[in-house]
Amino acid sequence: MKMLINVPETVVPDALRGMAAAHPELNVDVEHRVIVRRDAPVAGKVALVSGGGSGHEPLHGGFVGRGMLDAACPGEVFTSPVPDQMVRAAAAVDSGAGVLFVVKNYTGDVLNFAMAAELAEDEGIQVASVLVNDDVAVRDSTYTAGRRGTGATLFVEKIAGAAAEEGMPLERVETLARRVNESSRSFGVALAACTTPAKGGPTFDLPPGELELGVGIHGEPGRERRAMMTSGEIADFAVDAVLEELRPTSPVLALVGGAGGTPLLELYGFAGEVHRVLAQRGVNVARTLVGNYVTSLDMAGASVTLCQVDEELLRLWDAPVRTPALRWGC
Amino acid sequence: MKMLINVPETVVPDALRGMAAAHPELNVDVEHRVIVRRDAPVAGKVALVSGGGSGHEPLHGGFVGRGMLDAACPGEVFTSPVPDQMVRAAAAVDSGAGVLFVVKNYTGDVLNFAMAAELAEDEGIQVASVLVNDDVAVRDSTYTAGRRGTGATLFVEKIAGAAAEEGMPLERVETLARRVNESSRSFGVALAACTTPAKGGPTFDLPPGELELGVGIHGEPGRERRAMMTSGEIADFAVDAVLEELRPTSPVLALVGGAGGTPLLELYGFAGEVHRVLAQRGVNVARTLVGNYVTSLDMAGASVTLCQVDEELLRLWDAPVRTPALRWGC
Repeated sequence: MKMLINVPETVVPDALRGMAAAHPELNVDVEHRVIVRRDAPVAGKVALVSGGGSGHEPLHGGFVGRGMLDAACPGEVFTSPVPDQMVRAAAAVDSGAGVLFVVKNYTGDVLNFAMAAELAEDEGIQVASVLVNDDVAVRDSTYTAGRRGTGATLFVEKIAGAAAEEGMPLERVETLARRVNESSRSFGVALAACTTPAKGGPTFDLPPGELELGVGIHGEPGRERRAMMTSGEIADFAVDAVLEELRPTSPVLALVGGAGGTPLLELYGFAGEVHRVLAQRGVNVARTLVGNYVTSLDMAGASVTLCQVDEELLRLWDAPVRTPALRWGC
Repeated sequence: MKMLINVPETVVPDALRGMAAAHPELNVDVEHRVIVRRDAPVAGKVALVSGGGSGHEPLHGGFVGRGMLDAACPGEVFTSPVPDQMVRAAAAVDSGAGVLFVVKNYTGDVLNFAMAAELAEDEGIQVASVLVNDDVAVRDSTYTAGRRGTGATLFVEKIAGAAAEEGMPLERVETLARRVNESSRSFGVALAACTTPAKGGPTFDLPPGELELGVGIHGEPGRERRAMMTSGEIADFAVDAVLEELRPTSPVLALVGGAGGTPLLELYGFAGEVHRVLAQRGVNVARTLVGNYVTSLDMAGASVTLCQVDEELLRLWDAPVRTPALRWGC
């Protein structure tokens, strides 16, 4: 498999150099692998720090900026960042109001963020953490005990980021972040496997004519494989899987997310089918986001993430955001 | 090749239904295949209309909104829209101040937009047209006499759109659009072919271990095939090809555009290499955009588009824009 890279070993620092060149509004520390809002620390503001394996771009580095993350720590491809990155990020963005770690539920991330929280607290930084575990596909998985963290990460980072920007204290930002996660569920499908630079070939085998229902964002196995389905059938399956665990009594935010290798033309068609199913199930959609936000390198496929919102969460979702990958209102 | 679609025949209207659901700020006429700014016609404002084959998303429908296009007409995949769509779009957005057609240089588009201009003028709409032909790769190509129109389309639509939003008259907007095109040049490479829904398989053969230098956005042949190169070598080749025809004496806008199937992680790495080459050649970069903007379905690859700007063009580039795919400042 051909890739637009130099050598597999430098993919992450090479990308960080490109981010630094393209986004002068960010401070990109290529050596230590930390991406920071240039105006951090923002006086009196709770800071949000996230991170995870690379390969899910624009998550997390593309979500650093006003109204969302203060810093992001990219690990190697599909590999957790190390505690040193997280502590360095926390120290760079803490204004004294404390730091919220947003952690996707994968064993490596959980352990490393927990260690980083201890180390940061030793340095006098107040840290809270929220675990994102929205994927309903499987109970336990290759890299996870419990549900995996996927698309809801975007909702948590956006809404908690807006709350922090408004000056809410750490405890309140943490509570909101937890509420967003608990109000969110996801389900993804893969039509073709992704290729990691280190492996140079597909990370799993998916026979021609089959799709993986409930795939994880690293290509982890899902619920089952079936003969290829139409976009409408996939929407029925994915939305119903989400609605088995989330029964919205108020409007939802809908993320129709591409896995990376599926064209936007197809994603919009899928978004139309997702809306059709939601309307048939009586679910009201407040806002819809279609595109590549929480990806799996070049994997072909898509996912549906729903987040039930009340007036406060919707207001915070709509609040101004200015990051490389998500921006509105400013 | 598996795709996230229902049937190939309905890919375009299916996607339009999804756009309508996701973007209530747009008026999407699925039947007639026209996407219009909801507040059009804007009193006293010159209107911008563009269009072309589908498969290049977010171009053009994703660029409809304040500060950019007033309407877009999507054709079938890799097929020009028809004059009826363009006339309908022009009639929907014309405030009496006239309409500018932004036309990529492909024979079908050129003929159909020319016919539409005549028909619209018969209906009393003043029409001007600008041809985008920025691709330096080949002189003539599969669907084109002269240079092909690719990434510069985004620069033309953004800068002319800002000029129109400021209330400039048609002649001035047209002159600016032409100036942007003449100040822009592009060069693209393919690492893997794209798959059209109708064909269901790769649209061209690209042997393992080779890349196509100078590929067109429909997979048209480029200058040559070579054994796979590194990201840095590709950046050297692509930037130098652009600089053979564009010798900037002032800063440039740089679009490091994905072909669709190449992960953002790789695109950022490539962007870093493009910046390195430009610095080595003494070219100053004013703004950089990295991502999937003018795509070729799931083709793997990338392109470099440079646009030399003066103060006026840079100011118009920075002006507020609010579309599904490009937004800042509002």
